[in-house]
Amino acid sequence: MSRVVHITRRERFSAAHKLYNSEWTDEKNQEVFGKCANSHWHGHNYELFVTVKSTINPETGFVMDLKSLSDLLKEKVINHLDHKNVNLDTPFMKNIMSSTENICVAIWDEIQPDIEKKGAELVVIKLQETENNFVEYYGE
Amino acid sequence: MSRVVHITRRERFSAAHKLYNSEWTDEKNQEVFGKCANSHWHGHNYELFVTVKSTINPETGFVMDLKSLSDLLKEKVINHLDHKNVNLDTPFMKNIMSSTENICVAIWDEIQPDIEKKGAELVVIKLQETENNFVEYYGE
Amino acid sequence: MSRVVHITRRERFSAAHKLYNSEWTDEKNQEVFGKCANSHWHGHNYELFVTVKSTINPETGFVMDLKSLSDLLKEKVINHLDHKNVNLDTPFMKNIMSSTENICVAIWDEIQPDIEKKGAELVVIKLQETENNFVEYYGE
Amino acid sequence: MSRVVHITRRERFSAAHKLYNSEWTDEKNQEVFGKCANSHWHGHNYELFVTVKSTINPETGFVMDLKSLSDLLKEKVINHLDHKNVNLDTPFMKNIMSSTENICVAIWDEIQPDIEKKGAELVVIKLQETENNFVEYYGE
Amino acid sequence: MSRVVHITRRERFSAAHKLYNSEWTDEKNQEVFGKCANSHWHGHNYELFVTVKSTINPETGFVMDLKSLSDLLKEKVINHLDHKNVNLDTPFMKNIMSSTENICVAIWDEIQPDIEKKGAELVVIKLQETENNFVEYYGE
Amino acid sequence: MSRVVHITRRERFSAAHKLYNSEWTDEKNQEVFGKCANSHWHGHNYELFVTVKSTINPETGFVMDLKSLSDLLKEKVINHLDHKNVNLDTPFMKNIMSSTENICVAIWDEIQPDIEKKGAELVVIKLQETENNFVEYYGE
Repeated sequence: MSRVVHITRRERFSAAHKLYNSEWTDEKNQEVFGKCANSHWHGHNYELFVTVKSTINPETGFVMDLKSLSDLLKEKVINHLDHKNVNLDTPFMKNIMSSTENICVAIWDEIQPDIEKKGAELVVIKLQETENNFVEYYGE
Repeated sequence: MSRVVHITRRERFSAAHKLYNSEWTDEKNQEVFGKCANSHWHGHNYELFVTVKSTINPETGFVMDLKSLSDLLKEKVINHLDHKNVNLDTPFMKNIMSSTENICVAIWDEIQPDIEKKGAELVVIKLQETENNFVEYYGE
Repeated sequence: MSRVVHITRRERFSAAHKLYNSEWTDEKNQEVFGKCANSHWHGHNYELFVTVKSTINPETGFVMDLKSLSDLLKEKVINHLDHKNVNLDTPFMKNIMSSTENICVAIWDEIQPDIEKKGAELVVIKLQETENNFVEYYGE
Repeated sequence: MSRVVHITRRERFSAAHKLYNSEWTDEKNQEVFGKCANSHWHGHNYELFVTVKSTINPETGFVMDLKSLSDLLKEKVINHLDHKNVNLDTPFMKNIMSSTENICVAIWDEIQPDIEKKGAELVVIKLQETENNFVEYYGE
Repeated sequence: MSRVVHITRRERFSAAHKLYNSEWTDEKNQEVFGKCANSHWHGHNYELFVTVKSTINPETGFVMDLKSLSDLLKEKVINHLDHKNVNLDTPFMKNIMSSTENICVAIWDEIQPDIEKKGAELVVIKLQETENNFVEYYGE
Repeated sequence: MSRVVHITRRERFSAAHKLYNSEWTDEKNQEVFGKCANSHWHGHNYELFVTVKSTINPETGFVMDLKSLSDLLKEKVINHLDHKNVNLDTPFMKNIMSSTENICVAIWDEIQPDIEKKGAELVVIKLQETENNFVEYYGE
């Protein structure tokens, strides 16, 4: 019998960002984004959880080789975010508001085709900004 | 393309409670609820996780303003539970057994209409009682 | 109205294991499993999260008595894994590669009928091997 | 060479309490203790960390048998606090303000002679009330 | 008998910073500070733990009123660091390399006189930058 | 003014071990070590915290370069413990009972001279075996 199992890998990155809509006045930015709009940036230790699913390979007992998944995440995601400025340094966030929601969706778009090529299905990406809030994207 | 993202806010409250069915004898309460039936109460640091979903607002990058969500939770939920006795002080738990399950469902009923008014959908409420157990309610 | 609530119990076990496919050469095992193939074993503090769902019993406020769930997990699962060698000591892992995926699925098979007898539905088993990876099995 | 090592055991208890000085008016209690003075009690999941030190026993490699330490803590401390009301149910807290400071010192007094009899030295007791505050008592 | 107890308050702040010695070439900065020297900044969720000690006030059971300690930390420290750029926005870090060590010592200097005025003794300040590293300053 | 600051680096390793005194009968080993004496081994995710202190280097703001400390720990400690059997594979644990106390002291002896050569002072090594127990060695 062939069982479908989910596997999740956690990666971390420390990045600077700010929330700022350039079509708005400073006052409106301040009003909507509060301290997150500070023009000199602030930052977070983000935690990223990537969940994929597949049947178990009977020869290895693995859904997916975790080292291969981790390598993919480092190359496509972490290298562009860790010790970077999300607004200024991250190619896949160019001209995108750097909210946790948008970073999470952009990471999905970066890695989804590669996960598929490896024969697994990307299920959900969870991105934790602080201990009090996180977002999840299921590809909807 | 319009993406649907889940966002989760954590809030905490410290409360006293006991489990006791007034239609039962003390012996039966002791038998079923064990030390949770101690007539002098006990208590917990509860962790509440509220998850809502919506499309991303293109102007803000937000599914929902987290401050607005947190304010709603404080007003409708935390103010009635934090440093309170769930059985005696919490209006929405009057005459309801104060199990983690029932607190979780009651919180759903308290906030679901307000979440909807804010244009988001309430997905799940998770309530953690100790590091070894938590409950989740999806509105079923 | 009858609400369906999920409840999760965490248990922990500390076990030794190794990943090794006996039909392969040592070189291939080393290549595929890396340091996890070390012939002298290694080990982990595993965290097990078992989630069941049911309607709430109106007399108790419980989906399921957590002590009863914990007792079942100890008898059927933890006693066979804690301070054991998964490959050598665990009856339900005999001749099965001791990947986290396979341990998780085997635990499902061990406890699913008992959960059902108790009138609840097993929803998901999550097994965390390290702070950076965990698997989940939903019975698919 | 004989090395002195510290060993720490964590135990947990869930208890109700309130802060209230019976020589003060309700207004003064409210003013000083705020929501902690709620007459209907509130509660916490307390985490207790007990640290002892000694030379290592060469036959066992142990500073102190952890099971023996845990048994002592359960008998003398946890049994009187877990699922109890600190103000009403805990013999060693009778007529003592149930602040985290005072509970911590009282636990020291309860167990210090027994630790000494076991040939170890009690170094520090740490008592965590919430994720944001804890106290430590070194016997000063 | 008058007991001396330590009490610790945790506060959190999310800030941007970079490590850069302006007397060095870019190459030397890169060599010494690596990715921490990224000119566009990066950031962290810092956790601050402030430990003070004193005898217990017999009327309150408190070493120090935690709300008063928290208010002091917010006014003197958190307001100048949370959602700020340590290098550009924090008055007490002007012209100081924004290493975790230096931030920790600067916080000590900011609050030590106020702690003393409140009748307690500042014991140690711990500042955690990531889950893998933290510094502590004892006033030496 | 020259300030002395403590800095702590966390590293992790997953290892197998057992507690067994070869001069005792199986019965006595079972009696003293209980399930830790299981002849087929068990294992843990250990967390290692190494704390050193020094004055702050005014050019870098560092007590010690954390990468240099982490590299030292990986070379001298983690490489000999991670995904290894402490009793069989770890050179510095040969013929030493693999209690957490003894592992902690042995790590001190492995790294203390190197820390000193780097101009810092080793203060304490903390080794956590499970969430409920850890040991600390201060060089006494």
